[in-house]
Amino acid sequence: MDQVEKWGMFEICCKGKTEGNPYRDYTITAVFEGEKERVRVNGFYDGNGIYRARFMPSYEGVYSYRMEGDYSDIVTEGYFKVVTPSAENHGPVIADGTRLRYQNGKPCHIFGTTCYAWVHQSEQIQEQTLSTLQENAFNKLRFCFFPKYYEFNTKEPVTYPFEKGNGEGLDTKLVEREKEVRTVFPGMKDDGQEYGFDYTRFNVEHFQRFDKRISQLLNMGIEADLILMHPYDRWGNNEMDRESCLQYLKYVTARYSAYRNVWWSLANEYDLIKTKDLEDWEIYGITVSENDPYHHLLSIHNAVQNYDFSKQWITHCSLQRTDFYKTTEDTDIFIEKYNKPVVWDEVCYEGNIGIGWGNITGQELVRRFWEASMRGGYCGHGETFLAPDDILWWSHGGKLKGESPSRIKFLSEIMKDVPGGYLSKGNGMFDEVVGCAGEHTGKGHATCYDYSIHYLGICQPAYRMVFLPEDADYEVELIDTWGMTVTPLGKMRGVNRIKMPEKQYMALKIKKV
Amino acid sequence: MDQVEKWGMFEICCKGKTEGNPYRDYTITAVFEGEKERVRVNGFYDGNGIYRARFMPSYEGVYSYRMEGDYSDIVTEGYFKVVTPSAENHGPVIADGTRLRYQNGKPCHIFGTTCYAWVHQSEQIQEQTLSTLQENAFNKLRFCFFPKYYEFNTKEPVTYPFEKGNGEGLDTKLVEREKEVRTVFPGMKDDGQEYGFDYTRFNVEHFQRFDKRISQLLNMGIEADLILMHPYDRWGNNEMDRESCLQYLKYVTARYSAYRNVWWSLANEYDLIKTKDLEDWEIYGITVSENDPYHHLLSIHNAVQNYDFSKQWITHCSLQRTDFYKTTEDTDIFIEKYNKPVVWDEVCYEGNIGIGWGNITGQELVRRFWEASMRGGYCGHGETFLAPDDILWWSHGGKLKGESPSRIKFLSEIMKDVPGGYLSKGNGMFDEVVGCAGEHTGKGHATCYDYSIHYLGICQPAYRMVFLPEDADYEVELIDTWGMTVTPLGKMRGVNRIKMPEKQYMALKIKKV
Repeated sequence: MDQVEKWGMFEICCKGKTEGNPYRDYTITAVFEGEKERVRVNGFYDGNGIYRARFMPSYEGVYSYRMEGDYSDIVTEGYFKVVTPSAENHGPVIADGTRLRYQNGKPCHIFGTTCYAWVHQSEQIQEQTLSTLQENAFNKLRFCFFPKYYEFNTKEPVTYPFEKGNGEGLDTKLVEREKEVRTVFPGMKDDGQEYGFDYTRFNVEHFQRFDKRISQLLNMGIEADLILMHPYDRWGNNEMDRESCLQYLKYVTARYSAYRNVWWSLANEYDLIKTKDLEDWEIYGITVSENDPYHHLLSIHNAVQNYDFSKQWITHCSLQRTDFYKTTEDTDIFIEKYNKPVVWDEVCYEGNIGIGWGNITGQELVRRFWEASMRGGYCGHGETFLAPDDILWWSHGGKLKGESPSRIKFLSEIMKDVPGGYLSKGNGMFDEVVGCAGEHTGKGHATCYDYSIHYLGICQPAYRMVFLPEDADYEVELIDTWGMTVTPLGKMRGVNRIKMPEKQYMALKIKKV
Repeated sequence: MDQVEKWGMFEICCKGKTEGNPYRDYTITAVFEGEKERVRVNGFYDGNGIYRARFMPSYEGVYSYRMEGDYSDIVTEGYFKVVTPSAENHGPVIADGTRLRYQNGKPCHIFGTTCYAWVHQSEQIQEQTLSTLQENAFNKLRFCFFPKYYEFNTKEPVTYPFEKGNGEGLDTKLVEREKEVRTVFPGMKDDGQEYGFDYTRFNVEHFQRFDKRISQLLNMGIEADLILMHPYDRWGNNEMDRESCLQYLKYVTARYSAYRNVWWSLANEYDLIKTKDLEDWEIYGITVSENDPYHHLLSIHNAVQNYDFSKQWITHCSLQRTDFYKTTEDTDIFIEKYNKPVVWDEVCYEGNIGIGWGNITGQELVRRFWEASMRGGYCGHGETFLAPDDILWWSHGGKLKGESPSRIKFLSEIMKDVPGGYLSKGNGMFDEVVGCAGEHTGKGHATCYDYSIHYLGICQPAYRMVFLPEDADYEVELIDTWGMTVTPLGKMRGVNRIKMPEKQYMALKIKKV
């Protein structure tokens, strides 16, 4: 009997009809049934007469499967066995109140990074990207399914998501509207790439390449935050009508839902896509949610206007800074407002390009990570250093050049040590942000907890007053978040004047003995 | 005939009665009359049987004066001549819409600093403070009339504002309330200084020392931002009843209004003074305004809760940051809200003490100055570096140690070059703050003006796109606000890709030829 790990992927593959448009014209469903669950999924056509259905089991034991539909006159059925997951398989990441955790209960502090168009680059760069990820602590990668047209992104992708068609049925008014939108990226030119894909016929080579990359990320323990739509288009993908969009979203969910590491990002900067309105986004969001049997994490990301994250289909906030000066400092405000996990997917990138979202220092980016982490949220990385070959991590992947990744790795180690793996914002002085776990034990100015980290950000004190209760001992450590050192300062109680190094980006960890 | 400069001070001095309490018991008024104005002022008792009345003329020509009241049976009268002001005398600073300017029309960009308790220190330190001011570009000094009790401020002042009395009439409940308030400054001790001043009898030595210092600042071209009340008290000054407060405020205005460089700060951190409520502040504010014949600049400064700056007696906003992350970035919001000049009197100090308001870097403080200046407001400096002798500029004066003063001087030179001496916030990209003067000349993305400075703050671009109209030339300069250099980049028009030094705190000055 075939075996698959719990939260692994079991795939049924069989031949079927090729007449007409097999991506659209046939029903394909499969039912997987074990002792504790019965799951019905949509299958999909994978070209060359091949149909597939994929399943991610949530329990161990023997399962039956049965795949059928008008794609074929034959029903495919059988049995397989779901076995104990391997040590590195903790299941999908889920929202548990305002925190993220793996399905098996293991805490999951997400440290994302972004390579929007990495799968559209050459094989060599894609391999380099994976190799860079291997050396770093990022455990979520955010990337686009559709190719990207933007500053530094003017080359054609390796493959297109749709087959080239005759261009019939395209609404030319929509095309014109979409062209106008491109003027939001000053200095870019439209080099006249032809429109005319057939949005009802998928290019399976493109989808297969994403199968491979998502699967590789899965094996590396990296979540695949898959962006389904975005505004950076010159191939007409944003002019698809609603029917084609729905067909696309159903195909994508049928194909990728069984990868446990998939997150859905319905769109990047949805509010820059002028060919779609809020009604569209609602229908598309609900479609993804309903067609994903496992209800993977699902959100939608803004440019200027946050989406209404209170919608039921949205599992977490996927934020971009909307204030140039304050970003992750607002983490706890969003947590309180939406009572969902808060993921900052764009907080400006470490780099040196011409515009402010892509030229902050490593120090500032790392500071934003600490602010988010202390306040119970999750921050995302990106890097935009100019390069002679125009390969910028933020979009293409490749190699990292910046100073922030090693500090983010250091922060990830600090977070692994936190009881429960999650800090929430505690009380503190006005000039610190306190991430705490466990009980509040302070009285008066002794704002301390069983476990807390007091992050001092841009302050550079020579000393720091720490007020602890008189009736218990606390172990205190000095964390240099930029220098990446942890210095034990010993046990303390009562009023303490702690010598500090007169440098920015310090934190004090205070743990009840 | 005696001569005095326009906006100089003319003083009448005469003998009078000494029976009873001459600070309280007698009326003393003087009328000054020239061709264009007739001003009635209150005189004041200066001890030793001496009464004075002071006057600041606003016009040239011959004036008569007449001083009388029940302080004496003799009327003192005569004539004096008001002559053309000297080159450095531009008159008092006034609010002109949302900008500050001197009475003679000269633009006035205020660069304040703060030495709260400098006049309460030894003569030697006071002289050192003046000498430090001489070397720097600060043109406003903010300081307290009452002595200060606070961290680093636990010594007795050189003189007290009131004569030592028998302590009768003090409301002991108020004393207890005030003692409670001190707990907002954790770690401070009350060393048991006795209460018991007679708030109806002034210690003229104290007032005379302020005469001298205000006058010296005047001669140095420095505005004296005199703080009349504050919460840092252990001498009972905050327990004065309303009648005593009014007597104090009338005496202060009678005594100091004729110094053209005086600004009134009714209180520092008024909201930490728990013995007074909003009704008190309103009465006190109106009293100062009505008793100052020249209506010098008058405001009231907060700790946590901004005062309602729309009150008629308030000439300008005197702000402290109320958000730890955003301060002067909100300048234009306050300008729009109150339509009055916006003066940031506390935006955290360059230093290294234990608490966040006193340990930011020079870079961050200078950045806040630039943000304020580009947005049409005025920012204040302070410095809190630990010192073996506990002499910290922010309170005691003495010497400056930080890196910001030279950069503030550099900014003051930049501002002197601005047409009209004043920038207001213009349109720009989301990642820059544009201070502009003159007409808007841009189209589309060409957000430029006859004269504008584009400040890039924490961004560190390697290049910057600048979009100018095609039909005119603009001179462009690169300003390194921290490195204090100005590099001409030549004339430009149309779309330009400007090479930038990949460092923070850069600005581009763009001036229509």
